[in-house]
Amino acid sequence: MSKEDVGITVSKNEDFSEWYTQVVLKAKLADYAPVKGLIVLRPDGYSIWESLRSTFDKKFAKNGIRNGFLPILIPESLLGKEQKHFAGFNPEVFWVTHSGTNVIGDKLALRPTSETLAYTMYSKWIQSWRDLPLKINFWNTALRAEIKATKPFLRTSEFLWQEGHTVHTTQEEAEKEVMKILEIYKNTVEEELAIPVTIGKKSEKEKFVGAVYTTTMESIMPDGKALQMGTSHFLGQNFSKPFEVKFADKDNVEHFAWQTSWGVSWRLIGAMIMTHGDDKGLVLPPNVAPTQVVIVPIYKNDEGKEKVLFKVDEIKNNLESKGIRVYVDDRSELSPGYKFNDWELKGVPLRIEIGPKDIEKQSMVVAKRYNREKAALSCNEVEKISTILDEIQKEMLKNAKEQARKNTTDISEYIEFKSKIEDGGFLNAPWCGKLECEEKIKEETGADIRVIPFGSENSNLKCVYCQEQSVSIPIFARGY
Amino acid sequence: MSKEDVGITVSKNEDFSEWYTQVVLKAKLADYAPVKGLIVLRPDGYSIWESLRSTFDKKFAKNGIRNGFLPILIPESLLGKEQKHFAGFNPEVFWVTHSGTNVIGDKLALRPTSETLAYTMYSKWIQSWRDLPLKINFWNTALRAEIKATKPFLRTSEFLWQEGHTVHTTQEEAEKEVMKILEIYKNTVEEELAIPVTIGKKSEKEKFVGAVYTTTMESIMPDGKALQMGTSHFLGQNFSKPFEVKFADKDNVEHFAWQTSWGVSWRLIGAMIMTHGDDKGLVLPPNVAPTQVVIVPIYKNDEGKEKVLFKVDEIKNNLESKGIRVYVDDRSELSPGYKFNDWELKGVPLRIEIGPKDIEKQSMVVAKRYNREKAALSCNEVEKISTILDEIQKEMLKNAKEQARKNTTDISEYIEFKSKIEDGGFLNAPWCGKLECEEKIKEETGADIRVIPFGSENSNLKCVYCQEQSVSIPIFARGY
Repeated sequence: MSKEDVGITVSKNEDFSEWYTQVVLKAKLADYAPVKGLIVLRPDGYSIWESLRSTFDKKFAKNGIRNGFLPILIPESLLGKEQKHFAGFNPEVFWVTHSGTNVIGDKLALRPTSETLAYTMYSKWIQSWRDLPLKINFWNTALRAEIKATKPFLRTSEFLWQEGHTVHTTQEEAEKEVMKILEIYKNTVEEELAIPVTIGKKSEKEKFVGAVYTTTMESIMPDGKALQMGTSHFLGQNFSKPFEVKFADKDNVEHFAWQTSWGVSWRLIGAMIMTHGDDKGLVLPPNVAPTQVVIVPIYKNDEGKEKVLFKVDEIKNNLESKGIRVYVDDRSELSPGYKFNDWELKGVPLRIEIGPKDIEKQSMVVAKRYNREKAALSCNEVEKISTILDEIQKEMLKNAKEQARKNTTDISEYIEFKSKIEDGGFLNAPWCGKLECEEKIKEETGADIRVIPFGSENSNLKCVYCQEQSVSIPIFARGY
Repeated sequence: MSKEDVGITVSKNEDFSEWYTQVVLKAKLADYAPVKGLIVLRPDGYSIWESLRSTFDKKFAKNGIRNGFLPILIPESLLGKEQKHFAGFNPEVFWVTHSGTNVIGDKLALRPTSETLAYTMYSKWIQSWRDLPLKINFWNTALRAEIKATKPFLRTSEFLWQEGHTVHTTQEEAEKEVMKILEIYKNTVEEELAIPVTIGKKSEKEKFVGAVYTTTMESIMPDGKALQMGTSHFLGQNFSKPFEVKFADKDNVEHFAWQTSWGVSWRLIGAMIMTHGDDKGLVLPPNVAPTQVVIVPIYKNDEGKEKVLFKVDEIKNNLESKGIRVYVDDRSELSPGYKFNDWELKGVPLRIEIGPKDIEKQSMVVAKRYNREKAALSCNEVEKISTILDEIQKEMLKNAKEQARKNTTDISEYIEFKSKIEDGGFLNAPWCGKLECEEKIKEETGADIRVIPFGSENSNLKCVYCQEQSVSIPIFARGY
């Protein structure tokens, strides 16, 4: 047996970072590419991304958003057109300087994000109000050179994401779009990945530099660090002016358009691994699991084998006819125990064990991955498997919410803040709104403002740092 | 009205190249990006690609092929590992030399194709026969610098494609896989895009340099030039040896594995445009059309409008409930005539016109795009629309086959070859199998061997060039 086949060798509580890496590699979700900072997705990892993409695509389409394609190369001259926006990416940009042995004059950036390219095109395509709203999403990768150690899904120099770019005739419509997208993000992450998120605004300091404001969804991971799960930006006219994204209104007067951009990346998969995994390995929410049910036939001799496999086949067909993704593990040279460990490592939500004795009793054993509970199920009740999968999905979200709640503390005193931040977690702490306090807190504790939750504005308490009147209760945390 | 709204201004027969470009741009499938050689896909263009991807994904899945993800950057040291294979791409490779202001030591290529990267990973992942077959497909882009003028879908420096890479324990299994894929390619292109293809092998001269042999599907375009539509390569052990893709067999002896790779790109969309388009613009096969049916309500005053729109809504809902992609063009400021032209330009397969008189007669007008025939259809027969769309799909393939047949000639004399090649088209001509004759023909006529059709081997005629005994009857043509 090769090293790869051995299970997770560290505990999630003891060495979270090493545990995470082992789960990713040993569950065969991803692997390191030959270039530092880059990873490869194996089919089980990519399949989760495909599942998310398919869910988002349906929701985007209902909202009138269609997909398009943008090339990966952006000329330097274009990238620099919106200076403020570009400055932030400068140190991270990969530059193409040659094709073959020829030097390229205006050197080409590998897309760190596509605002500048998309809006160059949009300005050609949009003439009048009839062309608006224009709402296009792009499924591609972005490249931003990472110097720190590679962490699959969380810290890589190329990452899979979607970037949406919409254009509107009015500010109001654009701001509504920002919120619609944020809602789509939130309900998809909660319903599909069973991860609770908090939505709200970023502070001025933390927003996307090209945006008027940035809305965000944030989650707290079991190690106490916060993870940004997705952002939806209101761009105002910050790009439409330099890129001349203009439209003639019904009265034939030209106006600069109002814009939004928004994105989620494969770090959602990283969040899923961290939130649900355990010492046995990966735990997949049924909705996104490439395999939802694995059936392990158990037999000792050829006589038992035939009967068992016949029954297994019947169950498999029954489940597949209901749209459930099933796999039968009939590898004859491996023991049931080995197989159980293997599928637990891979996080398959439900395992069915069936042997000659079960068949006599017209029964099977059903083992849930997330809480590792086993129960008997009558062979006549196979149709209950759908319901069980739905219940698992809901239970996983409930448990994750409970975990997040435990990792969240209301803080009013700075001394408490400083002590609590060492344990990690979300700290709800009143803030005066001043950059100075935000910076001091960051400097002294390492905690950022992750999100100013909607509804926490207009608070009338005392800033946790300066004791002046607060304007909101942001969530502070140390982040990924 | 902006320039973009004006229809196609040249005839397909008069200036095929200009006609093609106008159709792509004016039907809003694609546009030129700011960097020479690169294009952007607008939603109607990308949607065709999504439709093809979805069809291929289903067929790949049935064949046990799953999708994965590979990063776009490949280190120079890796690319050079299989020298023969790499040499062909050398002049076309884009090189990344800097990240931010830092120089990158082992400079990075933008993937021209991923054999070297995929097989580096495969060699880590494969230990024993249990890990085989390994069949992974990657939907991504490839980058090969084009110096000639950009032609959307046909000649671009970055193109969307899929590249599949499989590994097998035996030569026989790998060769079967090569053929299975070629069959999937052929039936998808014929059934979805209504383009007939000829399948067979490439000559030694024309094969993928890294392959033992290359199978291909080729089509003849209306301008008489041949287009390579997709290739499926048997790689033998050409890569498994340098990349050490090895497996321990049941007897625990190590063997080098047998491999295949295969791909189709968005040039399929280019082929579709060329094959079916006409002087009015794009003509889309119903199976891949983003909008299959457009309904144009016709009315002169508000009174008529209400009745008509009520009926239109009823028809729309009826069609949508059958899974048909429908769009109602109720732009009030535009005339029906303008709308007809607009949707013809965009190639929507079926147009329904309905006005007050039609409603009185409980009838509607149905206009087919591909042959521009109009007919009345009773409002009670809306369910026939599905059948009509299926018929259009079949008719389009039939017409394209007829077109291809007219563009194909059996040749036995070289003098006839040289004359016929000036008209373009596929020339079936016996060949002795010698490189020398192939090169002479290319030199003297500009025609390549596009494909040696399956079944044309073992021919017993005289080589069209040297008059020695022929070994096959390849298709010669000038190509894209």
